[in-house]
Amino acid sequence: MEVENKASEAKRASKILSILNEEIKNLALVNMADALINNIPDIIKANEKDVSNAKKRNIKESLIDRLKLDEKRIISMATGLREISALQDPVGELEGMIKRPNGLLIGKMRVPIGVIGIIYESRPNVTADAIGLCIKSGNSVVLRGGSDAINSNIAIASVLADAAYKSGIPEGAINLIENTDRNEVNIMMKLNGQIDLIIPRGGSDLINNVIKNSTVPVIETGVGNCHIFIDKSAKLKSATEIVINAKVQRPGVCNAVETVLIHKDIANTILPDLVEKLISYGVEVRGCEKTKSICPDVKIAQESDWETEFLDLILAVKVVENFDEALIHIDKYSTGHSESIITEDYNNALRFLKSVDSAAVYVNASTRFTDGSEFGFGAEIGISTQKIHARGPMGLKELTTYKYVILGSGQIRK
Amino acid sequence: MEVENKASEAKRASKILSILNEEIKNLALVNMADALINNIPDIIKANEKDVSNAKKRNIKESLIDRLKLDEKRIISMATGLREISALQDPVGELEGMIKRPNGLLIGKMRVPIGVIGIIYESRPNVTADAIGLCIKSGNSVVLRGGSDAINSNIAIASVLADAAYKSGIPEGAINLIENTDRNEVNIMMKLNGQIDLIIPRGGSDLINNVIKNSTVPVIETGVGNCHIFIDKSAKLKSATEIVINAKVQRPGVCNAVETVLIHKDIANTILPDLVEKLISYGVEVRGCEKTKSICPDVKIAQESDWETEFLDLILAVKVVENFDEALIHIDKYSTGHSESIITEDYNNALRFLKSVDSAAVYVNASTRFTDGSEFGFGAEIGISTQKIHARGPMGLKELTTYKYVILGSGQIRK
Repeated sequence: MEVENKASEAKRASKILSILNEEIKNLALVNMADALINNIPDIIKANEKDVSNAKKRNIKESLIDRLKLDEKRIISMATGLREISALQDPVGELEGMIKRPNGLLIGKMRVPIGVIGIIYESRPNVTADAIGLCIKSGNSVVLRGGSDAINSNIAIASVLADAAYKSGIPEGAINLIENTDRNEVNIMMKLNGQIDLIIPRGGSDLINNVIKNSTVPVIETGVGNCHIFIDKSAKLKSATEIVINAKVQRPGVCNAVETVLIHKDIANTILPDLVEKLISYGVEVRGCEKTKSICPDVKIAQESDWETEFLDLILAVKVVENFDEALIHIDKYSTGHSESIITEDYNNALRFLKSVDSAAVYVNASTRFTDGSEFGFGAEIGISTQKIHARGPMGLKELTTYKYVILGSGQIRK
Repeated sequence: MEVENKASEAKRASKILSILNEEIKNLALVNMADALINNIPDIIKANEKDVSNAKKRNIKESLIDRLKLDEKRIISMATGLREISALQDPVGELEGMIKRPNGLLIGKMRVPIGVIGIIYESRPNVTADAIGLCIKSGNSVVLRGGSDAINSNIAIASVLADAAYKSGIPEGAINLIENTDRNEVNIMMKLNGQIDLIIPRGGSDLINNVIKNSTVPVIETGVGNCHIFIDKSAKLKSATEIVINAKVQRPGVCNAVETVLIHKDIANTILPDLVEKLISYGVEVRGCEKTKSICPDVKIAQESDWETEFLDLILAVKVVENFDEALIHIDKYSTGHSESIITEDYNNALRFLKSVDSAAVYVNASTRFTDGSEFGFGAEIGISTQKIHARGPMGLKELTTYKYVILGSGQIRK
C-alpha cells in the first residue's frame, strides 16, 4: 500500500532530518514559502476543482469556507512558513542539567519525535502548516487529507516537497497519501515503529475513529464545545462584546463559543440586549426556559444543544443559579478545549482558572484566541484536547520530545 | 465489573484530589509510610503466600527475586513514600507566562492528569511507589497487578488507602482491582473518560497487549534491550567495571545491559580479561565469530540474542568494525531504553549523545542509573520507552500535564 511505502521512506529520512543543521531547515522553509507564492494559479486551479465538487454535493457553507483557497489565503500560508522559519529551533537544546551526588551530570536534550502522521479533513491550509512545523522541528510527515481537498492538497504538498528537497531536506521527509481509499488510513493507524505519533484534525467522528483504531500513539485535537460564563459581577458591555466576537467572528472553527452560561442575578439586565445583537448578526439562539421567559423570541434548547459543537451561527444560552452550577455544566458538557469567565471578582476568576479542566481557561477574553498564531507559536499543528504530551495549541516544541543525556566519568551503581 | 465501579469512583475523587492542599497530601504520605512499617508482619505474611505459590509453579529465580518482600524492602518502600512527601509538588505551578501584544497574559499551569491506570506484573513495591507518586501529583489511581502478587498487593494497597483516607485524601482515590479475571483488564483499557492514562509495567507481552488494545492513551515502559559500546579510546579498567556493574549488579531489571559492542581495535586487548571476569560472576557470554576467535570459551550468539532482553546473567557480545556499525546495531536492536558509550574521544561522545535515539544516553557510566531514585525523583512510576509525553524515568512532574491560563481585560479577536 502507498502509506506503508511512504511511512517507511519517512522513517529513513527522519534519521537524517533529526540532526540536520538548523540553517538548512530555515532556508528550506523560506524557499517553500516562495514556491507557494510562485504557484498560486496552479494551487487555486486545483482548489477550484475541490470547491466545485463540494458544491455539487451540497456541502454546507461553513465547510466550503474551510475548503476554499484564494490568493490571500495562500499568501497567508506562505507567511506562516516564513514565520516558522524565523522561530527558534528547539531541537538539540539542553534543559535542566543537574549534578547528582555521584558526579553524574543529567539533563534533557530536545529531539524530534520522528515521523508524524496527520489525518485531517477539509482545510487545505493544514497541509502547508503541518509540513512547515514538522520540517522545522526535524520530523518527517505523512499526511492523509480528506478526499474533499485532495486536489488542493496534492498541489500544495508537491510544490512544498519539491522546494524542500532542492534546499537540502532529505527526500522522503514530506509525504501525502494520494490514494483516498479508506484502507490506507486503517493501515496507517497500525504502523507502530514507522509512525511515532498520529494527530487527527477534524470532526468528532474522524477523531473517535482514530482513537478507537490506532495502535500508534494519538493526540486528540480540535473538537471544541466551548463555554463562556458571564458571572454576576461582569461588565455588561465587555461581556456582550466578547460573546459576539466568540460566536460570530468565525463560527466554523473549534474555538468559537457554543454555549453561554449567565448568572441569574445578571440575566435580566444583559440578556435582552445580548440576544438582540446576536440575532442582528444572524445567530440562532437556543435558550433554557429562563432565557425564553426573558427573551420570548429564542427557541427552546434541547439536551442535545448543550452537547453540540455547532460550528455555525447557533448559540445555546443557559441561566444558572450560581457559580457552582456553571462549573458543573462545564464539567459535564465541555470537550476540554476553551472556556472563559467574564467577571470583575478576583476570587471567582482564580477559582475558575483552578477548577476548569480544559486546555485553555480564560478570564475576560474571547475563546477565539486559542490558536497557535495568537499564542505566538507562528502556526499550529492542531489544538490538543487531551491531557497527554501536549494541551492546547501545539507548536514547534510540542512536536519534539526529549531524551536524557548523562555525562559520566566511570560511575557504576553501588 | 469491579474496574468500572472503581474507575468511576476514582474519577469522582480526582476532582477533589486535583485541587487538594499540598500539606494534606504530604502528611498523608508520611502517615502511609508509617502504616507500612506498622504492618510489616501482615504484609510479609501475604507476600509469603505469593512466593510459595510462585515456587510451586517453578517460576525462575530472577522473577522470584522481584516478587519477594522482606523487612528491608518494605522499609525501603516506606522511605520512598517519605521521599515523595518531601519533594516539591508541581501542581498549580505557573510556567512561562508571556504578554502578547494585545495585552493578554498567557502561561501554563501544571495540573494533575486525572485518573492513572497502572497494569503491572510481579514486583509488589510498584504498588506503593505508584500510589505515592499518584497521590502526591494529585491523581487518582487504579492498579491492576499481576495475579502472582495479588496477596501482597491487596495487603499493601489496603494499608495505604486506609492511612490515606484517614489523613484527608478523598475516598476512592486509591483503587486496586482484586478480581484477577482477564476481562477486568480488557474493560479497563476501554474506559476513556474515566481513566486518562494507562501505564503498563512488565514484560513485552503485557506491554504489547496494552498498546494493541487500549483506547485510553498509553505510555510504554520498561522493556530494556540496553547496549554499551566500548569505543577504541576507552579506558580498559573503567570499561570493564562499567560492563560488569551493568550486567551483574541486578540482572533482573530493565536497565541492565544485554549487549556489549566492542570496537575491533580494542577487542584483543579488553576481551580476554572482560570475559574471564564475566564468567567468574556466573555470566554466560554469547559472542559473535570474532569474540569467539579471541575467547574460545564463549558460546556463539544467534540472531535472537541481539534481540533479547535476557533479564538474567547472560550477555551478548559483538565486535564492530567502527563507530557507524555500533550506531546501526543499536538503531536496529535497541528498545529505546538506555545505551552507553565508553570513550575518551570528545567528538565520539558528542556524536553518540546526538545520534542514539533512546530515553537515556550515557557517556562513561553504567546503564543501571536509569532509575527515578538515581535521577533524583524519589521514586518512579515507570521508565518510558516511547516518545510521547515523557521519556525515561517518570517522576512527579511526568504525572502531571498543563493547561493554558489566559488573563485578559476584555480582549476580542480582530
